[in-house]
Amino acid sequence: MSNDLLSSLEVGASASIAKTITDADIVLFAGVSLDTNPAHLDEVQASASRFGGRIAHGMLSAGLISAVLGTRLPGPGTVYMGQQLRFLAPVRPGDTVCATATVTAIDPERRRVTLSTTCHVGDTTVIDGEALVWVPAPN
Amino acid sequence: MSNDLLSSLEVGASASIAKTITDADIVLFAGVSLDTNPAHLDEVQASASRFGGRIAHGMLSAGLISAVLGTRLPGPGTVYMGQQLRFLAPVRPGDTVCATATVTAIDPERRRVTLSTTCHVGDTTVIDGEALVWVPAPN
Amino acid sequence: MSNDLLSSLEVGASASIAKTITDADIVLFAGVSLDTNPAHLDEVQASASRFGGRIAHGMLSAGLISAVLGTRLPGPGTVYMGQQLRFLAPVRPGDTVCATATVTAIDPERRRVTLSTTCHVGDTTVIDGEALVWVPAPN
Amino acid sequence: MSNDLLSSLEVGASASIAKTITDADIVLFAGVSLDTNPAHLDEVQASASRFGGRIAHGMLSAGLISAVLGTRLPGPGTVYMGQQLRFLAPVRPGDTVCATATVTAIDPERRRVTLSTTCHVGDTTVIDGEALVWVPAPN
Repeated sequence: MSNDLLSSLEVGASASIAKTITDADIVLFAGVSLDTNPAHLDEVQASASRFGGRIAHGMLSAGLISAVLGTRLPGPGTVYMGQQLRFLAPVRPGDTVCATATVTAIDPERRRVTLSTTCHVGDTTVIDGEALVWVPAPN
Repeated sequence: MSNDLLSSLEVGASASIAKTITDADIVLFAGVSLDTNPAHLDEVQASASRFGGRIAHGMLSAGLISAVLGTRLPGPGTVYMGQQLRFLAPVRPGDTVCATATVTAIDPERRRVTLSTTCHVGDTTVIDGEALVWVPAPN
Repeated sequence: MSNDLLSSLEVGASASIAKTITDADIVLFAGVSLDTNPAHLDEVQASASRFGGRIAHGMLSAGLISAVLGTRLPGPGTVYMGQQLRFLAPVRPGDTVCATATVTAIDPERRRVTLSTTCHVGDTTVIDGEALVWVPAPN
Repeated sequence: MSNDLLSSLEVGASASIAKTITDADIVLFAGVSLDTNPAHLDEVQASASRFGGRIAHGMLSAGLISAVLGTRLPGPGTVYMGQQLRFLAPVRPGDTVCATATVTAIDPERRRVTLSTTCHVGDTTVIDGEALVWVPAPN
């Protein structure tokens, strides 16, 4: 039997991770990323914007996609090669974001996997896109 | 005179932000994103990988691109619409990542701006890609 | 006169530390511990659980017991040897947890102290248990 | 087919999580727990102690046990009921701690699982003990 992550993958396989985005996440992401855009941090200015209030960083929700890839599908050890992201709707403090990755193609020779990647808040798609990863061979 | 962010933009304009990626950034990003891939957090396992040690989350460096867009070019109030990312080389704890965005196209009617986006560690390009943003009209 | 922590201890002595558990504590504890159980981080899933919403990590509240031992009773320099914990009731974001340690036995020859340890939220006992510590001799 | 976490468990099943304990983990754990014992944070004072330098909080390593229980075995949704801990050897900044839980008893009627829990740094056992958890029924 093999413990090769790649051999256990098949097109159509899917995994998800969900998280409630709190103010703490937004403050910590601002500190880590240096993205201090007032759209995320200044309720007065944000309330006058098209969104009517503060929204989470898009890249914060995108981080959940990274979590699915790196912990569930393909899983631990996965190496990120590329990601396309479309930010379709805002995520607000208190929203629960569910990130889902679904295998769309496998290149066994180069050990590369393509996955469609989406984030939802309830029934609303907030991010869609595609990931490309490399799966290491077992040691 | 206008304080419209869009009117001050021109193709070729460029801005950068740099940050040293510490162990603290990696731990905080793990908590915010839920990406607990051992490639980022377990030196013993990571030292046996192709990278020979722990590396930062790719999305953590990508956060610096978000910071350039949201604080410098176009600047505060910018709304992220999309991002393409290619992760080309690892970023290790202690590396200083410099993210640069350069305007490549402006659509004044729809108030959309396209920017090429790269991250470097010294002379090494660790991420390249392209961003699409929407610039709000002045209040 | 001695500044020996041990000589100032007596059975029945007691000390407490209290802290409000915020979303920030929960996010940071997730990053430090790697415990990303959705019971702590996903309001949608947690609201369907027996607790009806997100709860803090039990070990986060247990950390306050460590704080009492290591800063107040016996105090700075104390070495943790063992801890029994029973998690009796949930702690929710916004709850203020008060950890109390009470000396129940002193072994002066081996410089070991046993303490009963409890955590309360208001009148509710959320954790009880027992700690064993070693108290270093003065330098 | 059942997706009941409990039905997939058997005595002897085992899972592990490993993490390198950095200074960032120690600072963040101090902030979250309020355990500001100089043994963890003051290199000058700690270098005069029996350990010859700063050590990580014992409860920080114990958090990795919580991570195994809450993310792998039994897995997401698991409720912590109790934990016994013996701290056997120090963990120093830079050490990689591997936490392992092994099922030792299952009480299917009360949906309770007992696990032996250990933490290692290389070949050294730094914590041993036992956990008791409750596994929720599928929704």
